[in-house]
Amino acid sequence: MDLMANTLLSAGASPAMVHELQEIPDFTPRADALCVNVGTLSTEWLPAMMAAAEAEVRSGKPWVLDPVAAGATGFRLKACLELVGLRPTVIRGNGSEIIALSRASVGPTKGVDSSHESTDAMEAAKALAQASRCIVAVSGAIDIITDGQRVVGAQNGVAMMQKITATGCSVTALIAAFVAVDPLHAFEATASALSIFGIAGEIGMDMAKGPASLRMHLIDSLYGLDEATVLRRVNINRLP
Amino acid sequence: MDLMANTLLSAGASPAMVHELQEIPDFTPRADALCVNVGTLSTEWLPAMMAAAEAEVRSGKPWVLDPVAAGATGFRLKACLELVGLRPTVIRGNGSEIIALSRASVGPTKGVDSSHESTDAMEAAKALAQASRCIVAVSGAIDIITDGQRVVGAQNGVAMMQKITATGCSVTALIAAFVAVDPLHAFEATASALSIFGIAGEIGMDMAKGPASLRMHLIDSLYGLDEATVLRRVNINRLP
Amino acid sequence: MDLMANTLLSAGASPAMVHELQEIPDFTPRADALCVNVGTLSTEWLPAMMAAAEAEVRSGKPWVLDPVAAGATGFRLKACLELVGLRPTVIRGNGSEIIALSRASVGPTKGVDSSHESTDAMEAAKALAQASRCIVAVSGAIDIITDGQRVVGAQNGVAMMQKITATGCSVTALIAAFVAVDPLHAFEATASALSIFGIAGEIGMDMAKGPASLRMHLIDSLYGLDEATVLRRVNINRLP
Repeated sequence: MDLMANTLLSAGASPAMVHELQEIPDFTPRADALCVNVGTLSTEWLPAMMAAAEAEVRSGKPWVLDPVAAGATGFRLKACLELVGLRPTVIRGNGSEIIALSRASVGPTKGVDSSHESTDAMEAAKALAQASRCIVAVSGAIDIITDGQRVVGAQNGVAMMQKITATGCSVTALIAAFVAVDPLHAFEATASALSIFGIAGEIGMDMAKGPASLRMHLIDSLYGLDEATVLRRVNINRLP
Repeated sequence: MDLMANTLLSAGASPAMVHELQEIPDFTPRADALCVNVGTLSTEWLPAMMAAAEAEVRSGKPWVLDPVAAGATGFRLKACLELVGLRPTVIRGNGSEIIALSRASVGPTKGVDSSHESTDAMEAAKALAQASRCIVAVSGAIDIITDGQRVVGAQNGVAMMQKITATGCSVTALIAAFVAVDPLHAFEATASALSIFGIAGEIGMDMAKGPASLRMHLIDSLYGLDEATVLRRVNINRLP
Repeated sequence: MDLMANTLLSAGASPAMVHELQEIPDFTPRADALCVNVGTLSTEWLPAMMAAAEAEVRSGKPWVLDPVAAGATGFRLKACLELVGLRPTVIRGNGSEIIALSRASVGPTKGVDSSHESTDAMEAAKALAQASRCIVAVSGAIDIITDGQRVVGAQNGVAMMQKITATGCSVTALIAAFVAVDPLHAFEATASALSIFGIAGEIGMDMAKGPASLRMHLIDSLYGLDEATVLRRVNINRLP
């Protein structure tokens, strides 16, 4: 939550973290978007996540799901599937998570189990996006973003970002902020958020001596990013 | 909790974080002061907060309330009002939080709703301090501290501190540490804590390139602060 | 959790944080080692901690206990004793924690109460290790590691590490990672983890200006450590 909140503040958004079911009816209408992250999922938190997602959908506002470790346990996969059933605007995960979620909700996309490979992840993402009518983003060496028809790859960022806990969670939160600003273009907003978070990582890497200083410089860079730098560095391409 | 604990350690205090109701009777007597922060409030945590506050009051020790987002939900406002009823030594919030709390416990302080303006916050703070017989501090461009009669403004700190999550929470924790050292002068201790945290931010800002490096330099500066630097930079003035 | 996870990532391990009891049967078999930290213990979390420890023991995999503030409350001491009964591979605490735990499970090791002194901690650690048939490590100016017979002292690290919250928790997590790699030499793995975390602190200290920059440089240094540097700096000696 700490890095997620600091990512959002650095990007100009106004984060608030709410867990309590009783607060959802009052609080959710105040938010322009919702990010549900199942990282440290518990039986107690799930009803609040569901209620918040339902409230967002009812009010026509976007919400984003981060299905952390979706395939690691039955409890977690079941929870993620219930959340997917509430029609998130965007789902952002790594290859394993998206493949696990796609298989559980749509079925296998290929006969042979070659999970974690990028082609498998792309097929799984497309199938999940089509079945769930949402944007699906897969983080990796190349981030894949699809609405089920279009597929683009965002190729910004540095490998060391994976050595910092919660960078995936944080880019999901950033996607929620971007989608809040432009809900009618969730596909473009998602690709932009992934690319811009990656650009902040690239600039941060120039000053970093390891994962902890990269974490600091990444947030500083995100705060200081200007449009010209983004346009010069952005690397988003249509994928076949 | 992470930044709060590191703030306290850097200032020479000994923080401990306890959530479990069953631990309150054993643990609270060991603490010289208590900080109750309703940031990620839950139904489960509230009874422990109440029990800890009651134990502090019974033993004559100070406790400090951070009414995070007090006005955002009915559940939160009700919880904050119950906590205020337990007679905190100090309440520290931003303008919106103090205004929400003051209105709910005392009633509106002005006929016209011009909430968030600093004059409104000052009137709300004074009314709340009088009604609750405690010190009320309002963070802002100028921090306002009042005991219901006296009002001082502390004008240290830099705007970028608002771009770091939990700086408000952390200065509340620091107030608790200061009040623990000098419980008979809670008004002065509160103003000093706000000023010194701000001074650490000012010194940190000289080295910062963004919010994340400011966060680091702020804590380093707090750790390294000496009396001469504080006396040279402190900016606390009586307000009319 | 944040610093623990970043410590593990920087050391090349793959951390995951799980709280939910229902996830333990599915998740624990995926982990090569378990770290149980009672820092912010709650009634709700304890059954999951117990279930995870039992699952590790059943499958012959190592698990490590951090008895944070074991002696501070009756609830916490009882929970720690129950966990010790599940036969951790390693227990890592500070002097007070190990003395409290040893006294509660074995009885006093000396007639005179001179708690917190290093000789007392050493006797308490040996008694606890013998009674529980596990490795016990005591953090301090010299870290003490014992299996009940052998005793070594690891003398790496810098005093300022105590001014950073969760450094103790993080070195316990690192012990779990080291023991996962070499479960048959848990004694050596524990001493090595303590020494290497200390070495990372020593190198970080050369660049640090306070606790927050030390925290950053420590993690960067841990990430960048090579064998030659470790061998040159390691300071582990047999104690009488």
